[in-house]
Amino acid sequence: MERFAISVDLGGTNLKGGIVSAEGKITGYRSVPSEVTDGPALIMENLIGFTDDLMQDSKRLSIPVEGIGIATPGIIDPDFGGLTGGADNLPGWRNTPFMKILYQKFSIPVFAHNDVTATVLGEVRYGAGIGRTHVVMASFGTGIGGGIVINGKLYDGATGYAGEIGHLVFKAWGHTCTCGMRGCWEEYAATRGILRIARHHMKRDQLKQSILFEESQFVNESLTPRDIFRAARKKDLLALAIVDEIGRKNTAVGLGSLINIFDPDMVIVGGGIAEAGTVYLNAIKSHIQDWTLPDSLEGVEIVLAKLGSRAGIFGASTLVFDKINRYKE
Amino acid sequence: MERFAISVDLGGTNLKGGIVSAEGKITGYRSVPSEVTDGPALIMENLIGFTDDLMQDSKRLSIPVEGIGIATPGIIDPDFGGLTGGADNLPGWRNTPFMKILYQKFSIPVFAHNDVTATVLGEVRYGAGIGRTHVVMASFGTGIGGGIVINGKLYDGATGYAGEIGHLVFKAWGHTCTCGMRGCWEEYAATRGILRIARHHMKRDQLKQSILFEESQFVNESLTPRDIFRAARKKDLLALAIVDEIGRKNTAVGLGSLINIFDPDMVIVGGGIAEAGTVYLNAIKSHIQDWTLPDSLEGVEIVLAKLGSRAGIFGASTLVFDKINRYKE
Repeated sequence: MERFAISVDLGGTNLKGGIVSAEGKITGYRSVPSEVTDGPALIMENLIGFTDDLMQDSKRLSIPVEGIGIATPGIIDPDFGGLTGGADNLPGWRNTPFMKILYQKFSIPVFAHNDVTATVLGEVRYGAGIGRTHVVMASFGTGIGGGIVINGKLYDGATGYAGEIGHLVFKAWGHTCTCGMRGCWEEYAATRGILRIARHHMKRDQLKQSILFEESQFVNESLTPRDIFRAARKKDLLALAIVDEIGRKNTAVGLGSLINIFDPDMVIVGGGIAEAGTVYLNAIKSHIQDWTLPDSLEGVEIVLAKLGSRAGIFGASTLVFDKINRYKE
Repeated sequence: MERFAISVDLGGTNLKGGIVSAEGKITGYRSVPSEVTDGPALIMENLIGFTDDLMQDSKRLSIPVEGIGIATPGIIDPDFGGLTGGADNLPGWRNTPFMKILYQKFSIPVFAHNDVTATVLGEVRYGAGIGRTHVVMASFGTGIGGGIVINGKLYDGATGYAGEIGHLVFKAWGHTCTCGMRGCWEEYAATRGILRIARHHMKRDQLKQSILFEESQFVNESLTPRDIFRAARKKDLLALAIVDEIGRKNTAVGLGSLINIFDPDMVIVGGGIAEAGTVYLNAIKSHIQDWTLPDSLEGVEIVLAKLGSRAGIFGASTLVFDKINRYKE
């Protein structure tokens, strides 16, 4: 008999979710603003309303759901029914036992996990990493999120904080990171680092022709990684040089270190920046051998994430199917 | 009933071993030259002779042994009964099915594992890490060896090469490592890196008084990390400054990255350099917070290895007791 779960991905911008089958089909996909900045009471209200809509959907469609899976920022404590830490961007959310509240409201099992780690679970179960047992996922955006799967299971460390790969030191005493440390990888290979490389190239090569100069928005503060990768796909030479440096220097160095440490069978490259696609992946792959031991590199495949913004929803369903982090009454 | 194993640690210099009880007692400890440079046939002959001596001991003492555990350089393939790779310093050893040969000779179960990872298993079972479930061990010597225990079990990756923490990039495009990559951590925090820091300080401060100058052997090529740490224990100010820089700069940076990635409950610092003791550990501990996220640092204890050169023997016995990597006929 097919199995179903209600999955919710609580993000900084939206609540996304649906009814997910164990075969990986989403029914009744929904997305609403999460309004996280207006305090935990409103987040909870929105989460209950959103979950209730999905519960109603499942009843209307006669889909028997086994439980509710939630992907959320922060570190889960299934005994408390909420977070033990993290989620600094969701003020007050740490003190809200949302799992307990959902359980009391809907009377079905409630499971939850950190959203970044749920993402790798989604990719391994339904996306780029199907059948792989040892996977490191790196999601490049404003920062670098990390998810680690070992022997097919999420690895979250002794206290739930594992996978902070963005804070692998890339250059000791380098640029100050938002975490306060100096030289973290995410200062180099995420958005801020990419723009730093771009500005350096644009300043040096400002007499050369490039889409990056032709379109006025590129020369000012509004430059984004997306603009650079779009220009690179159009074979813009300056943009290609920037992308090559991103891959060679800032991204491959850190991924190579992770491969040397974990010896995974797959590395999944995800996050908003990875939406740049093959031009980005190729830049990484053409330089990864400079930073990886040959024996470890031989066994690993480096691929782009497949599920995009829906990976968290798929991951949340896996929590239910695998009974990970269940709230116990 | 107490359990016993015959344990052998095949090192580049010596074969060491004994009869180890599951409670952690070594009976009949022996050590003989391994003569590894004279080819695989002689290594095998020595290994058989050494094991035979231990088997005779066990018979003489009426100790019922369950099996033979071997710690060896390289990556084990229990089906082949030997190595699949690694062990570059033992020419020809890759092609010798030593597990099979020992099994055929002694007719009892034979188990084997990489020596560096066996060391962490020994420390977690009998040494510094008793009762810990998530442990990263870093052994500082000529290079940096790594051993990872996750949920109480050795983690060796998808193909057996995990734990190459010495090849975490410390400074991209920095000093060329023996592996060919540029800027590996072991170029900075192992012997070569320590001596580089020492020479830099000694050159800069050559007019100052220090034991390092007084004893003539320190000013030439024969300077070793041991000399530096010995002088530091005597409160030599120049040596203390060197040790502080080693801890602050080269050692703490890499350990902090590993803690951020693994969120372990313990980090064990071992290897020849760690024999320097508390002066070395204190240098690391006083700077580790600069390179570690507060949430991850809170849950981790950083300690020195306890078993010294016998950790591999203890680890080899654990292979037998836990039935790890058994040669199957």
